[in-house]
Amino acid sequence: MVHKVNQICYAFSMTSTNYEKHHCPIAQSLVELGDQWTLLIVRDAMSGLSRFNEFQDSLGISKNLLTRRLAQLCEDGIFERVAIPKSKRYAYVPTQKCWDLRVVLLAMAQWGEKWRDDPRLTRLEVKEKTSGQPLKLEFVPEGDSAIVAPEDIDVLRHYKSAG
Amino acid sequence: MVHKVNQICYAFSMTSTNYEKHHCPIAQSLVELGDQWTLLIVRDAMSGLSRFNEFQDSLGISKNLLTRRLAQLCEDGIFERVAIPKSKRYAYVPTQKCWDLRVVLLAMAQWGEKWRDDPRLTRLEVKEKTSGQPLKLEFVPEGDSAIVAPEDIDVLRHYKSAG
Repeated sequence: MVHKVNQICYAFSMTSTNYEKHHCPIAQSLVELGDQWTLLIVRDAMSGLSRFNEFQDSLGISKNLLTRRLAQLCEDGIFERVAIPKSKRYAYVPTQKCWDLRVVLLAMAQWGEKWRDDPRLTRLEVKEKTSGQPLKLEFVPEGDSAIVAPEDIDVLRHYKSAG
Repeated sequence: MVHKVNQICYAFSMTSTNYEKHHCPIAQSLVELGDQWTLLIVRDAMSGLSRFNEFQDSLGISKNLLTRRLAQLCEDGIFERVAIPKSKRYAYVPTQKCWDLRVVLLAMAQWGEKWRDDPRLTRLEVKEKTSGQPLKLEFVPEGDSAIVAPEDIDVLRHYKSAG
């Protein structure tokens, strides 16, 4: 059965109790992505952070909450927990499922940059690795020859200088 | 000052108290998009729902929580509250800032469809309006001639038939 909708997926009759069971892929993603912290932890992991203390220092999140979020991210296959040799510590390593969230995060960044009128905002720039050509997240036909593969993308951040 | 980062924006020294003040556009977006409900309300609004009772029926969310979320969405300029003539009720109408979230929601849908192994999942299909050509959300050079404008995009949802 196919329905043409105005703009976007729409799940009928969702209640808080069957929240995880209904079948909209957006809602399903939100079940895993959960609250704001989850996506910020994912962002930090993609930036190279991997240890409990590093996430805590970056986010200022409580130990309890960070422990729960990291356990859930591992259970959902977004992070892999890897023992660090000669230490009792672990590294949390992004999986492919995690890297695929880059599109979601950069879509949020693009929206935030367009609509937040905050001159202090870090500006993100997405470029093709070798040519340096600026890239944007857009809808294009499947197989379009201009599509840039994930491994050929660089993300630059521009800080406002203090002066 | 420009920093080249591994993959994605990274905000230093964010604490829960300065959460809203630090300058990463992803985190700034998450401040406005808040919890799961906010994005589900946005999804429903883009599908044509506009009244308090319609959102409540769709989401099974408590009246108190829905009231707070709708007020915040209006304050953030994502919805506009419009009085319905000859009634004491209001319609919540998506603004351009809201429509721009379509990319975020469809990025989440694309991720959810790829990584959820749930055969009951509604499948979303994004197509060019006149040609019916399937579209994907991808990084392409700015100004690429293959980019499809938002007004030329249709979103279809495919339900699994009961049989």
